[in-house]
Amino acid sequence: MGLTIAQKIIKAHLREGDMTPGTEVGLRIDQTLTQDATGTMAYLEFEAMGVPRVKTDLSVAYIDHNTLQSGFMNADDHRFIQSMAKKHGLKFSRPGNGICHQVHLERFGKPGKTLIGSDSHTPTGGGIGMLAMGAGGLDVAVAMGGGTYYITMPKMIRVNLTGHLKPFVTAKDISLEILRILSVKGGVGYIIEWGGPGIRDLSVPERATITNMGTELGATTSIFPSDEVTRAFLKAEGREEDWTPLASDPDAVYDRVIDIDLDTLEPKIACPHSPDAVVDVASLKGTKVDQVCIGSCTNSSLFDMLKVAALLKGKTIRPEVSLSISPGSKQVLRMLADCGALSDIIASGARVLECACGPCIGMGFSPNSGGVSLRTFNRNFLGRSGTKDGKVYLVSPETAVAAALTGEITDPQLLGEMPEITMPEAFTIDDTAVIEPAAEGPEADAVEILKGPNIKECPLGEPLGDELYAEAILKVGDNITTDHIMPAGSKILPYRSNIPHLSQFCFEVVDETFPERAKAAGRSFIIGGENYGQGSSREHAALVPLYLGVRAVITKSFARIHVANLINAGILPLTFEDPADYDRISQGDELKLTGIREGLESGVFLLTDGEQQIRLKGEFTERQKGMLLAGGLLRYVGQEK
Amino acid sequence: MGLTIAQKIIKAHLREGDMTPGTEVGLRIDQTLTQDATGTMAYLEFEAMGVPRVKTDLSVAYIDHNTLQSGFMNADDHRFIQSMAKKHGLKFSRPGNGICHQVHLERFGKPGKTLIGSDSHTPTGGGIGMLAMGAGGLDVAVAMGGGTYYITMPKMIRVNLTGHLKPFVTAKDISLEILRILSVKGGVGYIIEWGGPGIRDLSVPERATITNMGTELGATTSIFPSDEVTRAFLKAEGREEDWTPLASDPDAVYDRVIDIDLDTLEPKIACPHSPDAVVDVASLKGTKVDQVCIGSCTNSSLFDMLKVAALLKGKTIRPEVSLSISPGSKQVLRMLADCGALSDIIASGARVLECACGPCIGMGFSPNSGGVSLRTFNRNFLGRSGTKDGKVYLVSPETAVAAALTGEITDPQLLGEMPEITMPEAFTIDDTAVIEPAAEGPEADAVEILKGPNIKECPLGEPLGDELYAEAILKVGDNITTDHIMPAGSKILPYRSNIPHLSQFCFEVVDETFPERAKAAGRSFIIGGENYGQGSSREHAALVPLYLGVRAVITKSFARIHVANLINAGILPLTFEDPADYDRISQGDELKLTGIREGLESGVFLLTDGEQQIRLKGEFTERQKGMLLAGGLLRYVGQEK
Repeated sequence: MGLTIAQKIIKAHLREGDMTPGTEVGLRIDQTLTQDATGTMAYLEFEAMGVPRVKTDLSVAYIDHNTLQSGFMNADDHRFIQSMAKKHGLKFSRPGNGICHQVHLERFGKPGKTLIGSDSHTPTGGGIGMLAMGAGGLDVAVAMGGGTYYITMPKMIRVNLTGHLKPFVTAKDISLEILRILSVKGGVGYIIEWGGPGIRDLSVPERATITNMGTELGATTSIFPSDEVTRAFLKAEGREEDWTPLASDPDAVYDRVIDIDLDTLEPKIACPHSPDAVVDVASLKGTKVDQVCIGSCTNSSLFDMLKVAALLKGKTIRPEVSLSISPGSKQVLRMLADCGALSDIIASGARVLECACGPCIGMGFSPNSGGVSLRTFNRNFLGRSGTKDGKVYLVSPETAVAAALTGEITDPQLLGEMPEITMPEAFTIDDTAVIEPAAEGPEADAVEILKGPNIKECPLGEPLGDELYAEAILKVGDNITTDHIMPAGSKILPYRSNIPHLSQFCFEVVDETFPERAKAAGRSFIIGGENYGQGSSREHAALVPLYLGVRAVITKSFARIHVANLINAGILPLTFEDPADYDRISQGDELKLTGIREGLESGVFLLTDGEQQIRLKGEFTERQKGMLLAGGLLRYVGQEK
Repeated sequence: MGLTIAQKIIKAHLREGDMTPGTEVGLRIDQTLTQDATGTMAYLEFEAMGVPRVKTDLSVAYIDHNTLQSGFMNADDHRFIQSMAKKHGLKFSRPGNGICHQVHLERFGKPGKTLIGSDSHTPTGGGIGMLAMGAGGLDVAVAMGGGTYYITMPKMIRVNLTGHLKPFVTAKDISLEILRILSVKGGVGYIIEWGGPGIRDLSVPERATITNMGTELGATTSIFPSDEVTRAFLKAEGREEDWTPLASDPDAVYDRVIDIDLDTLEPKIACPHSPDAVVDVASLKGTKVDQVCIGSCTNSSLFDMLKVAALLKGKTIRPEVSLSISPGSKQVLRMLADCGALSDIIASGARVLECACGPCIGMGFSPNSGGVSLRTFNRNFLGRSGTKDGKVYLVSPETAVAAALTGEITDPQLLGEMPEITMPEAFTIDDTAVIEPAAEGPEADAVEILKGPNIKECPLGEPLGDELYAEAILKVGDNITTDHIMPAGSKILPYRSNIPHLSQFCFEVVDETFPERAKAAGRSFIIGGENYGQGSSREHAALVPLYLGVRAVITKSFARIHVANLINAGILPLTFEDPADYDRISQGDELKLTGIREGLESGVFLLTDGEQQIRLKGEFTERQKGMLLAGGLLRYVGQEK
């Protein structure tokens, strides 16, 4: 039986497992990337592991999220990451050098390689034929240390593109179309492979727009073949030698096949507040627009920006519309300046922001109250823009420009002729904003790790004994999200490397007294209902409770990623054998969990609450048992050394 | 007797008074400007006055301070100001069009005209021969309504420049030298006129650097003649017709004359935390630098930026230094892009920020903890950078580049040859980012004023009785700035139109308990030392204490703009007859101020503190007495109607 592209890469990197969909596979990771918002914790974890030098082919630390620097925290974090990179053998991409995914594509991505990144849009690398996946910071730290990365072996979806995109219809519209078809849950458990004759017209950055937004489908990742288009991109980046061809076998088997006819595709728009609330742009004609944002890891390539500049040239944006442009990288910005395109953009009245994530992650450029904002980004979740009642729509750069020029949602096909865009044969290569690490040995040993007051230790779990006695410090209901457990927002996000500070806000929306009570108790249990820990994958929702002394979480059921984060942190996640037992425990009860070691084997645990005996379940792989006994993944990795 | 330049302009605009130094003069104001941080309140005040259309020759509303937009507040404020401008006959300079003072110089400033602006660096306009003064928002609102602007008739200082600046020594170094000579208090009560053969080499933007920083001297304003240099600048801006010659009479009399020999001037640097803590750059050689910022209304002209680009060209900044570049205007940014200079800046590793005030007002780019930041700005007050323990030094663009390239404080004369800078004959004129107001009549009447939830009412003072009994709720030392009283920074600045929210941060850097204590006390006094209220013109430093119940401020001396703002707010500003009495009052003392009405006439007030009797001074014009008795300017204006 033939293999898909992803199966080929997995097979070539397989350390554990047999590639049966739904079972765990362990992969060797060639490259890692981090951004700064998740990176600080990843590097604290890496430091705790005690590995002197990264063992990947390439690891890059990017600064692109926290670039506003309102207060000392961001600059402290940047310096910490920079010093860690220098000491431990990573490349460091300076703030201003651009968005991690765009820069990685330009300078480092290689077809056929595995990449994990502590950012959910790491699948951008699939545009250049990488198996690129978003992961937790600890997973990235482990991979940097040479450790194995575990995923559930995905099933395969194939999307065939036929025909040709019309002018003003773009890769972004293809992304929105697949979201319309599959929904934000439709990719869960799958890798999406893109193919068919229609991909030949799509450049690597356009392909990357599509794999980038595959994250919104819930897919493990998305991938394109590595072909002559890929080779041309790498050649233009001065690294044709990094090219290898990569294609699926003719007899590869897919669990599902979807066909999209590019000839008939129309400009699409995702309505508030979900990336899959997709309709034709034309259907919203006339909706007044307050703000337009162009950029983000989805649509900030040179090609995107040249189109934008050509459409804006000689025109002035509407007085009532505020337009931001965030080029994806220093390379893009410089080439825009050199060819006159930046001048056209500036002349139109656009506001040129730094090469960074910026408005996409709510770091500035928040719209007015109730404002309509059209963005070339990948997410339009409620409140993500920084304005709670903002109405964010996701569009292509072309549709964005059409709105900026008309003041309303407008089908860009009404703009007239699409100007001819000439892409350069070669990009302007300049890696001076990527700082090389110190040489291994005395030079690296001499590097001081710079920890400002915003950099605190990463909490470590305790090895699990056979018994746990603790109070049910908090009892919560169903559908608790990681935002309940560890809120985000612009006030809290700069403290992602400072667990003690973060801990003050743990469960803030549920019970403000929780942090103080938990700390006073020393060790504690949390009791939860159904679907505990749903939402964002943030590992801080496990690390902060760990810091506050939580040793076990007992619920009716868990969300998938959060339970993995709890185990990584060394917190025991158990469920009620009989969900009705949830009602028998009250907040404040003193609980005894006994026979833990036997329970790890049998999957059944015994909880004593006063006179009551309650049966709990917990089934774990050998690896997970090892982590729990060791006191979390960090200690477990330490044992293995 | 001949007249100085300033006296000539005052004479031509005199509505009240006889120009005797120390007495009040009332002036007709030709032009006004506002920025957004002070502008929201100014326009709320203008709205409260009920004037349908501005009565000045020209009024411009700029957006340059609150451009980060973390949350809905900034965008709401921008829309409010834009709608007010459109309805009431002001030009509106869009966010991204640049810093008010730079844009005003380029496009609107005219020799011989009067300008007041709700920004303390409005004297920048003195570089083009305007009588340009910073004022409270309420004063600007009154002037927009055609009302008279009152100042105490200043005395005159003349600074004669002789010789020629050496390469790498700049207008900024002249600014720092005069600060070294005069100190931050040395200009109080004066207008500083710059002349002598040395000014012939200084272009209008260089002159503007000097008049801009004259604000730090406490001067009423600073001014240059309007000569052929001025004419050439206006010609390059396509508006030679705005030029008129302007010079002092040969027999003009000055109260003080200072000579500066440019031939021997060395690069200067102001040390933390005062603009007058000036030493030679060379004396700090080797001090490690973490951050460098180039821009602000002091040093963001095309000439400044071209020098920076030429010095950075082909070089890479040190890995341990973060460098930001904020061009002063869209005109500057576009011309930098068109001539290749921007490409050189980007290539060096600099981070290009939006054309706005940015880091100068703590809006982002805060240094790391304890970090050393060299900035081409005008202020280095403690905490203004957003990092409490940041160490900010003020330097020229040349000295800034030298630090970025070497990683330490370095005399720029060591950089080698200064590259030749060719200034263009003509600037690129494009006013499309300045939006014209609606036509008077039905078009203006139809404009809806857009008020988001961040726009709150302006607080009103209470009519003054004959006695005030209150606690000395806070006692502070000398040189308290308006940044101490009402901090700015990225967290607070977005609430400039929301006094209740702002009040939580009043005097935060001095005493965090102040807001709560003041509110609990209901009414209170503040005791201060010399030069109380120096720095930024922000009237919020009066309005917020007013909101918190402060009824009188008793000091050794006041800064000019702040005392006017206190009176405008209806807060009684008094000084000790014997400054030594400052030591006799302790924080927490219960004070009685009696015979207030008599005091307003006699200028002498009696303060009782326990057994002690302390004599205070307070001389007020009839107008000021009226305002104090009415409870502030808004109530006073209301009475007059």
